[in-house]
Amino acid sequence: MLPLTIWFRDWIRPAWPAAVLALAALVGPVPAQAEDGYALWLRYAEAGAGRGPEAPRVSQLTTPDATPTQRATRDELLRGLRGLQGRAPTLAGRIDRTGALLVGTPQSLPAIARLALDLGDLGQAGYLIRSTRVDGHPATVVAANTDVGALYGAFAFLGLLQTGQPIANLDLREAPRIERRVLNHWDDLDRHVERGYAGQSIWDWHRLPGWRDPRYTDYARANASIGINGTVLNNVNANADVLTPMYLEKVAALADIFRPWGIRVYLSARFSAPIEIGGLQTADPLDPAVQRWWQAKAEEIYAAIPDFGGFLVKANSEGQPGPQDYGRSHADGANLLADALAPYGGIVMWRAFVYSHDEPDDRHKQAYTEFVPHDGAFRDNVIVQVKNGAIDFQPREPFHPLFGAMPKTPLMMEFQITKEYLGFSTHLAYLGPLYEEVLRADTQVRGEGATVARVIDGSLDRDVPGRSALTGIAGVANIGTDRNWSGSHFDQANWYAYGRLAWSPERSSRDIAEEWTRMTFGNDPAVVAPIVGMMMGSREAVVDYTGALGLHHLMGRGHHYGPGPWVEGGPRADWTSVYYHRATRSGIGFDRSRRGSDAVSQYAPPVADVFDDPDRVPESLLLWFHHVPWDRPMASGRPLWDELVHHYDRGVATVRSMRETWAGLDGRIDAERHAQVAAFLAIQAQEAQWWRDASIAYFQSISGRPLPDGIAPPTHPLADYQSLEFPHAPGDTR
Amino acid sequence: MLPLTIWFRDWIRPAWPAAVLALAALVGPVPAQAEDGYALWLRYAEAGAGRGPEAPRVSQLTTPDATPTQRATRDELLRGLRGLQGRAPTLAGRIDRTGALLVGTPQSLPAIARLALDLGDLGQAGYLIRSTRVDGHPATVVAANTDVGALYGAFAFLGLLQTGQPIANLDLREAPRIERRVLNHWDDLDRHVERGYAGQSIWDWHRLPGWRDPRYTDYARANASIGINGTVLNNVNANADVLTPMYLEKVAALADIFRPWGIRVYLSARFSAPIEIGGLQTADPLDPAVQRWWQAKAEEIYAAIPDFGGFLVKANSEGQPGPQDYGRSHADGANLLADALAPYGGIVMWRAFVYSHDEPDDRHKQAYTEFVPHDGAFRDNVIVQVKNGAIDFQPREPFHPLFGAMPKTPLMMEFQITKEYLGFSTHLAYLGPLYEEVLRADTQVRGEGATVARVIDGSLDRDVPGRSALTGIAGVANIGTDRNWSGSHFDQANWYAYGRLAWSPERSSRDIAEEWTRMTFGNDPAVVAPIVGMMMGSREAVVDYTGALGLHHLMGRGHHYGPGPWVEGGPRADWTSVYYHRATRSGIGFDRSRRGSDAVSQYAPPVADVFDDPDRVPESLLLWFHHVPWDRPMASGRPLWDELVHHYDRGVATVRSMRETWAGLDGRIDAERHAQVAAFLAIQAQEAQWWRDASIAYFQSISGRPLPDGIAPPTHPLADYQSLEFPHAPGDTR
Repeated sequence: MLPLTIWFRDWIRPAWPAAVLALAALVGPVPAQAEDGYALWLRYAEAGAGRGPEAPRVSQLTTPDATPTQRATRDELLRGLRGLQGRAPTLAGRIDRTGALLVGTPQSLPAIARLALDLGDLGQAGYLIRSTRVDGHPATVVAANTDVGALYGAFAFLGLLQTGQPIANLDLREAPRIERRVLNHWDDLDRHVERGYAGQSIWDWHRLPGWRDPRYTDYARANASIGINGTVLNNVNANADVLTPMYLEKVAALADIFRPWGIRVYLSARFSAPIEIGGLQTADPLDPAVQRWWQAKAEEIYAAIPDFGGFLVKANSEGQPGPQDYGRSHADGANLLADALAPYGGIVMWRAFVYSHDEPDDRHKQAYTEFVPHDGAFRDNVIVQVKNGAIDFQPREPFHPLFGAMPKTPLMMEFQITKEYLGFSTHLAYLGPLYEEVLRADTQVRGEGATVARVIDGSLDRDVPGRSALTGIAGVANIGTDRNWSGSHFDQANWYAYGRLAWSPERSSRDIAEEWTRMTFGNDPAVVAPIVGMMMGSREAVVDYTGALGLHHLMGRGHHYGPGPWVEGGPRADWTSVYYHRATRSGIGFDRSRRGSDAVSQYAPPVADVFDDPDRVPESLLLWFHHVPWDRPMASGRPLWDELVHHYDRGVATVRSMRETWAGLDGRIDAERHAQVAAFLAIQAQEAQWWRDASIAYFQSISGRPLPDGIAPPTHPLADYQSLEFPHAPGDTR
Repeated sequence: MLPLTIWFRDWIRPAWPAAVLALAALVGPVPAQAEDGYALWLRYAEAGAGRGPEAPRVSQLTTPDATPTQRATRDELLRGLRGLQGRAPTLAGRIDRTGALLVGTPQSLPAIARLALDLGDLGQAGYLIRSTRVDGHPATVVAANTDVGALYGAFAFLGLLQTGQPIANLDLREAPRIERRVLNHWDDLDRHVERGYAGQSIWDWHRLPGWRDPRYTDYARANASIGINGTVLNNVNANADVLTPMYLEKVAALADIFRPWGIRVYLSARFSAPIEIGGLQTADPLDPAVQRWWQAKAEEIYAAIPDFGGFLVKANSEGQPGPQDYGRSHADGANLLADALAPYGGIVMWRAFVYSHDEPDDRHKQAYTEFVPHDGAFRDNVIVQVKNGAIDFQPREPFHPLFGAMPKTPLMMEFQITKEYLGFSTHLAYLGPLYEEVLRADTQVRGEGATVARVIDGSLDRDVPGRSALTGIAGVANIGTDRNWSGSHFDQANWYAYGRLAWSPERSSRDIAEEWTRMTFGNDPAVVAPIVGMMMGSREAVVDYTGALGLHHLMGRGHHYGPGPWVEGGPRADWTSVYYHRATRSGIGFDRSRRGSDAVSQYAPPVADVFDDPDRVPESLLLWFHHVPWDRPMASGRPLWDELVHHYDRGVATVRSMRETWAGLDGRIDAERHAQVAAFLAIQAQEAQWWRDASIAYFQSISGRPLPDGIAPPTHPLADYQSLEFPHAPGDTR
């Protein structure tokens, strides 16, 4: 709602009469763009706070335009600089004044070649940004080895302006630590999104390829701006139809749109596709006809999409077909597809989130048990995709024991960006701290410092003979047709944080939160600090009000909406809540210690020793690993029951505090976004209370313990909470 | 993309320096609003063509703001006039200059009371617009008996400006001919839209009532602007959950948003709700417990929504429950609900689109057969809702024989706005001529001039003793979450035309097309004429390429996408194509004459005589009513087979011509909308060819007749067309 007068101030300085300013004010309201969230963090809508008229500006832009990526880079720079500076720089072949910006590669731009920059360590995606002199004039150069590297550098330069940082005396070098930075869309072909809370799938399959929605380009821009370079278009619970010619033509249209932005498409492949769309009687990976079918399919795909990324596969998990249907191993299955894709440079991302029809004693252990024996048995173009924890994207989980346990096999992280277990899209929960917690967790498999980040970026096991150099990271997208893409304005931050951490897994989630806030809500310090504060405490609030101290998997059945600690029965025990919390009159928690399921022994000994010991395990994971009495004394001095109640109350209080903080920003944030966030925080407050009340009512019915003094009892009787049903909640599996 | 400079021209006249104009140009592009279709026909984005600087302008606005409707009216006028004139008028308590606009009722605005206008015939929704003098100054007055009437008048006044009409010397009086002007949303509670091709349901049930999307208000504005005053929120294939307290709270939130705009909410009621959510063992309408349940439910609804409109019911049709399950009649069922709603002023809209599990000899006859015996048996607050034709919203159908056949019972028209059978949202097909054709059809039940319009507006049977005065019209909405609401820009015209005809069923669809075009694409004559031309020929093109001469129900099974004249088998014959076209080696068409199914006898004798005679029936309905030989000579002199092929070719040619026309508008229409329409026309051209080729290939395989000279054979063999499957096509029934 703001830029018009600001632009005018830029323009009329110093000579325009005050009447013109008045005129500009009268014309309003003409928003330069609606603040509906569509622009994401690429609003380019205001100069950074503190950037006075004396701040350096880009006066000239020199960048090539011979390739689609070069043109995309140039257009993005023009768009961004026009927005941020009030006018676009001139496009210049030669530099004749202060403030030129040169963007390109030594091959694409002779002026960059002449600078003889050291680009050796930047690889295929890195860039440098340096203040220098060109043709005698102070200038800034953004240089890379590839067009896509230069595109990333252009976004980084714009990011400096967006976040109000100085652009004089720059000397930055950036290269990604992980090669494949991928989104996983759990999008069905009818546009339903499994675990999607932001509308429908943005892939309008029916109208593709004829209609190429401009939104696809904006999707690619947004992803490129944070370094994401791959996208799996369809649900891991895959439909084989996506591999038919009709759909491949549609996929190719999307690939064409994404290619200039350095993004490759991948597809989730249904393992039984040779039967369903190929007319074969079997999908046995050792059957030559099956192998030929996949080879021919790969040839067909690459004829349409020369840079196709490869397949993501969920096999023998939750009812999906897989190699075990034929008595073959996960390695047999993965290698079947890998061999078909290898001639074209494609890869297979084979998910380790498996559990069989036979219920194990502890589902926590199953992926490790099934996969570790195959370490070293996968082809070089296979990467095993492992969820951050062993259960399923809970608000807090210990890191997955597979990290560090398969040194001969590249492992790919799978984070969930969509908030299946953290309040859908209405709860404000910034996931940066969750991602950071996992990435920084120390597996200790090779002594201290063997962080999960170093497992997935390959640096930990680079010396293992014959190990593939593939690296990757995946985020399950929270993107849909909602105007603001993610269902809520703050959920955009989770997409953003995922991308930034995929590029630099060592980055601080707080720094990322601040960067995102500045790009999204502006550089006013009175806005930035409170928002970052809200974000940084928000995930812990969800942990508190949904179940702290290591409790997990307590949500409603199926749709996962709201509290369901009482969920029991049904097709299998490990789809219930009581399986996980195991609360009785005497105590609560899942005993995964050496005296229990012994899941702790899947971790390296120093970690296992800590997790195994109820006195050493972090309190935040106590009930994940131990079944303990309700009156066990906690660090606070409170007994466990009182501590648990305290956490529920604290979660509710944190949400209340977020609401107050946000209310205090009224007038400092555009009314449109302020109103939606305020409405969502009100929903969150109501639902946090619901979680707290329902959980306390339930656990009290088990423990029989009184509430601590001064603690409010649940608003309603337990039976009321248990009676609630939500058959039409969004995002359910189908 | 245009208004900034236009606004400046308005403002700087006459004294600003040229430099300011240059400045304004330099600032761009800052679109005042993206031309993405979201604004619908309420863009308010440009002055009408030909409205020079000397054109009268609204200088002052005098309108009350004591009620929500009055405030909505005032805000809409300010928004519209600001956009159309470059600046908003001043809000004035007293008139002190030329060009004031007064809007209100004698009760709300003393200045209007003082004018002592004759508002007697305007009813509760009508208005007048008159040029007059107020306090000695030339002024315009918009007056009505109610706030909502004044709101409608305000939109009408803005419409004059939008369409470039003079606003001097006005003397207009308008009142709707039909009382209930309703949209039917076939929206499920999980946001799937049955027969929806514009994304998901705009009702975000999960986030209601906490999140009141501003889009709901824009929906209400758009509907109010065309006089729609009711909306049925959920699918006629209803889920009883919408009647539970959790959903009624959400419904009430929407009702609160819509109320200021004169729009009441209705719900589709599942007849078996007393069982499903009431815990009863029966839904028998004569069971006292069932009656009490509905009475209590009505009381509960009206406590939350005092102006709740009532229920729409699809009963004993296509598997839905209904009174016949208990051996009761449609009248018994409708009266059950009507009695529950009557104390609160609610009504029942009882659908006549019924067909039983037992297949009749001709489905065409069933609604008439079932309903006519109950004429006079319905309560006064029941209206029977009848589709425009007896089959199902085909591109062309004769009017439904029920119109005129139930003089003691109010009948409500049901049109389909969403294009289930006319190319989904990618085919340009303006439905105004279809609606007009039906409304102007003469039932001849009381001599000539007994048009369908006069049946539904109640004027034909006003003298029937004891007849209820209820009148209504329903349109099955084409609205979804797509940014442009209707899936395509041109499908907005069908929403618009429906609303305008609901208000004035005698209006010309061409006039409406021109009005819509001016509001949507501007008043440039070089734009208006070609677009209106495209629109007016577009529905006939669909008839031609999908099956002319009275052919019907030839589409793909289930999803209804694309051609399927070969569809046969399956659960029942009247869900196939071969049931309807009955093509054999010797001839084609459904014999509904007196020698056939005798459906013709459901029409009044003069109509029946025409339809019964293959030489008198309009050629466009020949195969609807008659089975005739392939070589029957047609009016053109061609044999029937050649004539049919000619129509297929003509349909394809018309689409080609529309593409050429549209291409010629490049540069005269904003690039964003031009590109989407062009892409959709390309899809339509491809699919028209597909329909033509597949249909000719199929019918040729039956008739064994050669193609006429010079006619291109189908591109592919018939088997190729028959092999196509579209399991994920949008909008299917679930």
